Amino acid sequence: MRIVRFSVDGSPARFGVLDEHDRIHALDRLDDPGSTTGESVAADAATLHAPIPPTGKIIGVGRNYAAHAAELGNEVPDRPLLFFKPLSALVDPGRPIVLPAFSDNVQYEAELVVVIGRTCKNVAEGDAASAILGYTVANDVTARDIQKADVQFTRGKGFDTSCPLGPWIETDFDPRGARVRAHVDGELRQDGTTDQLVFGIPHLVSYISAAFTLHAGDVILTGTPPGVGPLFEGQSVTVAVEGLGELTNPVVAEGTG
Amino acid sequence: MRIVRFSVDGSPARFGVLDEHDRIHALDRLDDPGSTTGESVAADAATLHAPIPPTGKIIGVGRNYAAHAAELGNEVPDRPLLFFKPLSALVDPGRPIVLPAFSDNVQYEAELVVVIGRTCKNVAEGDAASAILGYTVANDVTARDIQKADVQFTRGKGFDTSCPLGPWIETDFDPRGARVRAHVDGELRQDGTTDQLVFGIPHLVSYISAAFTLHAGDVILTGTPPGVGPLFEGQSVTVAVEGLGELTNPVVAEGTG
Repeated sequence: MRIVRFSVDGSPARFGVLDEHDRIHALDRLDDPGSTTGESVAADAATLHAPIPPTGKIIGVGRNYAAHAAELGNEVPDRPLLFFKPLSALVDPGRPIVLPAFSDNVQYEAELVVVIGRTCKNVAEGDAASAILGYTVANDVTARDIQKADVQFTRGKGFDTSCPLGPWIETDFDPRGARVRAHVDGELRQDGTTDQLVFGIPHLVSYISAAFTLHAGDVILTGTPPGVGPLFEGQSVTVAVEGLGELTNPVVAEGTG
Repeated sequence: MRIVRFSVDGSPARFGVLDEHDRIHALDRLDDPGSTTGESVAADAATLHAPIPPTGKIIGVGRNYAAHAAELGNEVPDRPLLFFKPLSALVDPGRPIVLPAFSDNVQYEAELVVVIGRTCKNVAEGDAASAILGYTVANDVTARDIQKADVQFTRGKGFDTSCPLGPWIETDFDPRGARVRAHVDGELRQDGTTDQLVFGIPHLVSYISAAFTLHAGDVILTGTPPGVGPLFEGQSVTVAVEGLGELTNPVVAEGTG
């Protein structure tokens, strides 16, 4: 099942189920895909938004593919390297990534995203599946120069438009061996699979939920495979997880978007 | 004017104005203190919550008092050192700080907090005052061992109950020279003034808003003076900003709260 966050003619965004006939059925509760309200709309009359509630949190995992850690000269960490992106960083499918004026090196990072399905804390690895609603795709856009200079990833990974997310939450997706790719202007730049994750999804859910209470709709960006590189004004970047979905966003400079 | 976030008998939390007769007048919009709805309740019949909307963001500033940076053996940074706390870290006034099982050294940090009053981006230092709704108080509770070991502050400053906030937003407060103190079981541990801030409030608002769009109710924790130290199960910690308010929270161990 595909769960989208949508609006029609500027109405407040809400969650809905996208069916095989391209109709969206509004949902009362994200954590209950059976809670359709009876309202529906044709998908082509709706705008899709990043599929996360306005109260959600975005947790990133750094250096979670060994070959990506190596390409940046970093060690593989001995525990998951966590950071937060704020909700102000979200970009809806198709909307622009705005290169911030304070960076000269903004890079794409294609990632598989875990979407949490219920409020939980201290989840055991063996129970992680029951805490997961589904999966989506993100571009963990990173100002590489600022990330390095600031040490803390806050600005470098949290600036406005650093988190394209979507296009939907797929609830019937098997993340094992999923191919994660990025293309810039149609050219393949990243191509990895989730078999290469240093810390797998059950461990991430368990480790993260030991520190932070998670709620339905919170997301975990699971890290990026090798091949990261810079984005320039005028380019178009696509991040995709095979069998799940893809996101394409144009790149503009601050002040021109 | 004091703006609180309150609930009555488990109702959803909302913002209100606390008057001098200890009545709370419900507000329709946080960014418009004139938008009272006509509903009111006696303060002693209400529960006070951390005064931030459920969509807000919490931005912290590290090492922003030189004497505190020095006591931990750190340099004063050449730019504001930023981090995020998630909303799952909030603690309402009077509620317990829960020491996480993964840390052996959880410390208090008394801080003055700036509350943003309107959606803004790229605020000039000279316009910072117009972006500020008021001020409140926080305890930037920090798992010092985890903060150091993880390098990223995510877990060490973001775990559940790491952000007591409140008790209210004071809109008529002059933060210049404000005395910031922490007491543990009645014993004075921190005693500084905001004259000692490395980066002042106008610069923080300008610098932070260059990276992140800020919204009404977002908060900036401005850093802590020297004197930080560990908290132990059974203690009570009070953080205060003179003329603004204070927060007292008991300390419990995970699994006992």
